[in-house]
Amino acid sequence: MKWAMQRRCALVGVLVILLYTDVLSAQAQVRQEVRLPDILGYKTLKCDFHMHTVFSDGTVWPTVRVDEAWREGLDVISITDHIEYHPHKEDIPTQLNRPYEIALPRAKERGILLIRGAEITRDTPPGHFNAIFLEDVAPLETKELLDAMEAASKQGAFIWWNHPNWKPDKKGWLDIHTELYEKKYMRGIEVVNGLDYDAEVHAWAIEKNLTFMGDTDIHDPCPVDKSTPERHRPMTLVFAKEKTLEAVKDALVNGRTVVWHSDLLIGKPEYLEAIFDKAIAIRDFDYEGEDTIRCAIENRCDVALKMDRTRGPGPKELVIPPGGTVRLKLKVKSVESPTELSYVVRNFLVGPSKGLPVTLTIPGQVTVNIGVETQGK
Amino acid sequence: MKWAMQRRCALVGVLVILLYTDVLSAQAQVRQEVRLPDILGYKTLKCDFHMHTVFSDGTVWPTVRVDEAWREGLDVISITDHIEYHPHKEDIPTQLNRPYEIALPRAKERGILLIRGAEITRDTPPGHFNAIFLEDVAPLETKELLDAMEAASKQGAFIWWNHPNWKPDKKGWLDIHTELYEKKYMRGIEVVNGLDYDAEVHAWAIEKNLTFMGDTDIHDPCPVDKSTPERHRPMTLVFAKEKTLEAVKDALVNGRTVVWHSDLLIGKPEYLEAIFDKAIAIRDFDYEGEDTIRCAIENRCDVALKMDRTRGPGPKELVIPPGGTVRLKLKVKSVESPTELSYVVRNFLVGPSKGLPVTLTIPGQVTVNIGVETQGK
Amino acid sequence: MKWAMQRRCALVGVLVILLYTDVLSAQAQVRQEVRLPDILGYKTLKCDFHMHTVFSDGTVWPTVRVDEAWREGLDVISITDHIEYHPHKEDIPTQLNRPYEIALPRAKERGILLIRGAEITRDTPPGHFNAIFLEDVAPLETKELLDAMEAASKQGAFIWWNHPNWKPDKKGWLDIHTELYEKKYMRGIEVVNGLDYDAEVHAWAIEKNLTFMGDTDIHDPCPVDKSTPERHRPMTLVFAKEKTLEAVKDALVNGRTVVWHSDLLIGKPEYLEAIFDKAIAIRDFDYEGEDTIRCAIENRCDVALKMDRTRGPGPKELVIPPGGTVRLKLKVKSVESPTELSYVVRNFLVGPSKGLPVTLTIPGQVTVNIGVETQGK
Amino acid sequence: MKWAMQRRCALVGVLVILLYTDVLSAQAQVRQEVRLPDILGYKTLKCDFHMHTVFSDGTVWPTVRVDEAWREGLDVISITDHIEYHPHKEDIPTQLNRPYEIALPRAKERGILLIRGAEITRDTPPGHFNAIFLEDVAPLETKELLDAMEAASKQGAFIWWNHPNWKPDKKGWLDIHTELYEKKYMRGIEVVNGLDYDAEVHAWAIEKNLTFMGDTDIHDPCPVDKSTPERHRPMTLVFAKEKTLEAVKDALVNGRTVVWHSDLLIGKPEYLEAIFDKAIAIRDFDYEGEDTIRCAIENRCDVALKMDRTRGPGPKELVIPPGGTVRLKLKVKSVESPTELSYVVRNFLVGPSKGLPVTLTIPGQVTVNIGVETQGK
Repeated sequence: MKWAMQRRCALVGVLVILLYTDVLSAQAQVRQEVRLPDILGYKTLKCDFHMHTVFSDGTVWPTVRVDEAWREGLDVISITDHIEYHPHKEDIPTQLNRPYEIALPRAKERGILLIRGAEITRDTPPGHFNAIFLEDVAPLETKELLDAMEAASKQGAFIWWNHPNWKPDKKGWLDIHTELYEKKYMRGIEVVNGLDYDAEVHAWAIEKNLTFMGDTDIHDPCPVDKSTPERHRPMTLVFAKEKTLEAVKDALVNGRTVVWHSDLLIGKPEYLEAIFDKAIAIRDFDYEGEDTIRCAIENRCDVALKMDRTRGPGPKELVIPPGGTVRLKLKVKSVESPTELSYVVRNFLVGPSKGLPVTLTIPGQVTVNIGVETQGK
Repeated sequence: MKWAMQRRCALVGVLVILLYTDVLSAQAQVRQEVRLPDILGYKTLKCDFHMHTVFSDGTVWPTVRVDEAWREGLDVISITDHIEYHPHKEDIPTQLNRPYEIALPRAKERGILLIRGAEITRDTPPGHFNAIFLEDVAPLETKELLDAMEAASKQGAFIWWNHPNWKPDKKGWLDIHTELYEKKYMRGIEVVNGLDYDAEVHAWAIEKNLTFMGDTDIHDPCPVDKSTPERHRPMTLVFAKEKTLEAVKDALVNGRTVVWHSDLLIGKPEYLEAIFDKAIAIRDFDYEGEDTIRCAIENRCDVALKMDRTRGPGPKELVIPPGGTVRLKLKVKSVESPTELSYVVRNFLVGPSKGLPVTLTIPGQVTVNIGVETQGK
Repeated sequence: MKWAMQRRCALVGVLVILLYTDVLSAQAQVRQEVRLPDILGYKTLKCDFHMHTVFSDGTVWPTVRVDEAWREGLDVISITDHIEYHPHKEDIPTQLNRPYEIALPRAKERGILLIRGAEITRDTPPGHFNAIFLEDVAPLETKELLDAMEAASKQGAFIWWNHPNWKPDKKGWLDIHTELYEKKYMRGIEVVNGLDYDAEVHAWAIEKNLTFMGDTDIHDPCPVDKSTPERHRPMTLVFAKEKTLEAVKDALVNGRTVVWHSDLLIGKPEYLEAIFDKAIAIRDFDYEGEDTIRCAIENRCDVALKMDRTRGPGPKELVIPPGGTVRLKLKVKSVESPTELSYVVRNFLVGPSKGLPVTLTIPGQVTVNIGVETQGK
Repeated sequence: MKWAMQRRCALVGVLVILLYTDVLSAQAQVRQEVRLPDILGYKTLKCDFHMHTVFSDGTVWPTVRVDEAWREGLDVISITDHIEYHPHKEDIPTQLNRPYEIALPRAKERGILLIRGAEITRDTPPGHFNAIFLEDVAPLETKELLDAMEAASKQGAFIWWNHPNWKPDKKGWLDIHTELYEKKYMRGIEVVNGLDYDAEVHAWAIEKNLTFMGDTDIHDPCPVDKSTPERHRPMTLVFAKEKTLEAVKDALVNGRTVVWHSDLLIGKPEYLEAIFDKAIAIRDFDYEGEDTIRCAIENRCDVALKMDRTRGPGPKELVIPPGGTVRLKLKVKSVESPTELSYVVRNFLVGPSKGLPVTLTIPGQVTVNIGVETQGK
């Protein structure tokens, strides 16, 4: 029966045919949404508040920053060109408000919320600071740092310290930083800048209750043409009542942020916990005999869940990639009562080298229906 | 100011560090979920009801089929080795029920619903037929095709015609098929087999109200190590009340299926429409002047939406990849009343070369809040 | 024996661990070489002679064009900002030679050969023309097109017609083009511009013996962060004696180019044939009985080989991806004498819709050693 | 001028259109060649000498192993099913020579050199040993380990110790291993098995002058559908006079192997050095003033080069991915005489945690032409 031999090569993997039109669409117009849940009654806005253009030492026209933000799933950005540093001024006369003005119509077209901002740039120490929610950048061009801070403050700016430890030989929290902090000029700090997470800065942010900021500080074109869970730009997740300037400012002032960097989420326990709870789904329970439970654990968000067991039942390690599911077989004391699995999510950082402790509750057999109900979907 | 120059190379794209443990997890244990919505009160089960093992002319051990199904996001499978064709019988003595028996414990471990099945294999014409929901395959090993059909039928099997046109020189719907159809043996038909969609078979399925089946008929190991929207195995989406044998059978008998093949969804309009409605989200409305509306259209499922305008406002073509969003700027008669956009989804096939007509409703400015509410999320 | 069961999950696929340092290297500094052979005693230079910056209507600083070219494996580029069109002039005062001057030090650093150029921009018709190998762009800013052409010509420029048919309602070869051609101003033509290959222009290029040009005409940042065979920017392959301005000009003036676009190579038969001969390797001959030969055919370049049989032995179609090998089993008249396989390479275009005819020679059994020798490696 | 605005979106990245036929070719028939140079007058054969099928505790039919090897660029394989362990024997009666016999015609068809082999399987310790180049596996089925060794030895087998430390609680080189070694039964050892590289075993291999083996020990279908430099199966590179059984055996007996695992090459310095010399190309020299040299360093093979400077000029770290090039700017004592850069290739392991020391010679300005000549290409 020759036919059966011919069928042996039947393949099942199918590649979607990619036409030019698709490519055009995909690259010119399509935004890739990031899957991160809204939490605690807030919208989770994806933000990048630190970036440059040809108007200071960047290499792109301001509209490029909007296009990149749209493609990569951001909701809110601020262009923060240096006020005091203009290496292209021979060709581009300095105009401090132009990056914002040029980018604004494109931001409106794309539905990106654009915030007027600037980088107050001093030799390190004291270093660089971003001020956003400005009405006019010009008054910030002052000789004295404190004058610039006051000018920004008068406009109601939210100000934070950029890449505090970027000069290894001149790092550290100095008196000037204490002064800026006590005068309530400086209300946030970059725990992540570009590719760098700084554990010492992380500790300062916790100790001083500064808002956690994670910024790209991007100068060149974004090297990522599409955001994927494996490859995304660092961003600040802002938990805001709505997507408006006022609501974003309220969230920043009140410290409602989490930083997403590589496979790390960095922030306060209450926000990381809320994200974890919405990301995870425990389902498909299968009870066997008196002491065996099988179930599936799904990760419904774009950040991997990397968990280490702290005690009790469960596998030593649980790693669930974005959109993935693992299946467990558990030996429990009794299938009739709920079982609690104790883990630490090692890539959800509540402090330097300190993961988020979580409990996964596997419902007992008699309570299954209720258990599933509360998982929701 | 040297520092700024040093900062110029700040990069933003970050690749997650992939450790061996992740790779092990990813490949050995992790299932990639497929994003396709539940519809009309039913669960959308991802199914493949046609596959082979070393027990007929396949090249893998039965447990491999379960592992593949788990990894690629399937919920239900049936192994359907040929009853009459055993090229490996010199090494593997024929045992018609063994593939099911060997795979069952692994299916239980993985949470995959496994259905006992077999392929009734005759020279073409009349060709090959799958029977599933069997209790014992042995009684189907008969000389006469009709006897095999009756034996399957007695066990309550659901039976369909496989790859009807796979032999170009011996294709066509013949008297024998009419007989099988009229005797209610044959209740489904493979619109898709492996890489092949057959438009003529699609027309027969509609004309005779046969259940749409899309099967891999896989013989070799699955070449896809992870399901992605761009690269997935063909599957039959079954709309079932729950994930049980009875519910799947009920759905198949009553024709509640859609076939997913490449970037095509093939099925009855009511199911395609329900999927479309749940996949699409229209949001972020921005009204400008009296006649301009901007909004975003998101595709929340793993099938691309490829739409052509049939009349009225809107861009000529709208292509939204899985998880992607496009932004529209519309000139409308008035921003105050709702605007309807008329498109045909060319990759949602309700018939051969016939896409699904859809209407996208953009709410008027005064009705925004209500409009958004009904989109839900 | 429990151990064996534990071994069952041994995996073999290994993902290289990607550290941040690698990513930094990979994106900031690493160039991906393109595998295309040197031919006929010439070096095969990968070139893009048409691109824009913020100094006309592009969106990047000139150095970005050099960095992109380096990363994507180009050897030679020309920045060709519009002479007459400056939408950013409110912010960037017009300076026609600045893009070249700014990019030059970066080009020297990267080892990219940079050619001073400009785009002479007129309403269509007559349209746009690039002039490169200029000493000074300023004299080309004239009211009359012919004056600009003459100014360019005086500087020894090589001039070609850009995207001739880009305005569908104003397309066609007109008297003005004949004049430019006959005056030997216009010596090349864009068969490919950005995503578009134009078959009519291809025919003109052949008829008029114009140099084949394939340019990106890129305005925004390059969306491709690494060149791969599946995803590369369109380029002009220039067959030059060496990597110098003089040698590139000599090649352009004498029509020694081939355009690489998507999976197409477009050019004169002698160049396509020379590339094909160096790309293909026929080896691993296995003779069986009197009439069966098996052998492997490898594609050693970064362009796929897609061949259709024209007559005689061999499979109907042969598709060999970059760096891939297919294996053939041939029934031949006699294994003792050479066998010729006749194919057309359908993606090596010697004319509109016209592939390159090739002959693959399989040596006879007695002549194997000699045959292999001549294949070289 | 509206046209220029329309051109702004011109894109340059082009995705090759992937048709079904390509996919079919790509997956069913195409082999991806691995770029690793022939060295020292030998052919570099890519080999995997340890794998399983349904005939012991694997899950695939023997032909699958040949198909996988072909796709992933291997030249030589051996199927080594356990002699003493047959979990499928209820369904597949034991036949020790069948895996080889079934796979042989497919190997001939694909041009893969297949070696008859088997795994001599004892409780650990002493553990498992592979014997290949057998004429008949049956005589190796003995009660005593030494009898099996002698039976294999009589047939001229090459024998090595598999995954020596795979049982953490029963690991170590014991008297029995010394006996096998001294009797010259055991002439190789698995430095790499599956995903695991073992530094202690590496030390033993050096100390005892055992042949370095790197095997997959694969049981399930290969999870990699195409070999890429980032994702490849572990393999043993064998430096053989030709692709014949005799030549492979000669190379194994004489220790002419290197193991490729993840991004590591593990082996004797002379072989790693020869590979490095052929992989690297230093070119495109640019001399500036009296003390500055720029040049490009290309990696022409499929293994990344990861180098750390040991002393003198050059960047602290040099990482060159497969097919990539980096560009250096060096401050040297004088551009007129050659400059030597001293590095250690940290991923070319000549011992546990010990990279290969290399010298990169940058020719002086007057000697450039000669220098380039000797680099060859």
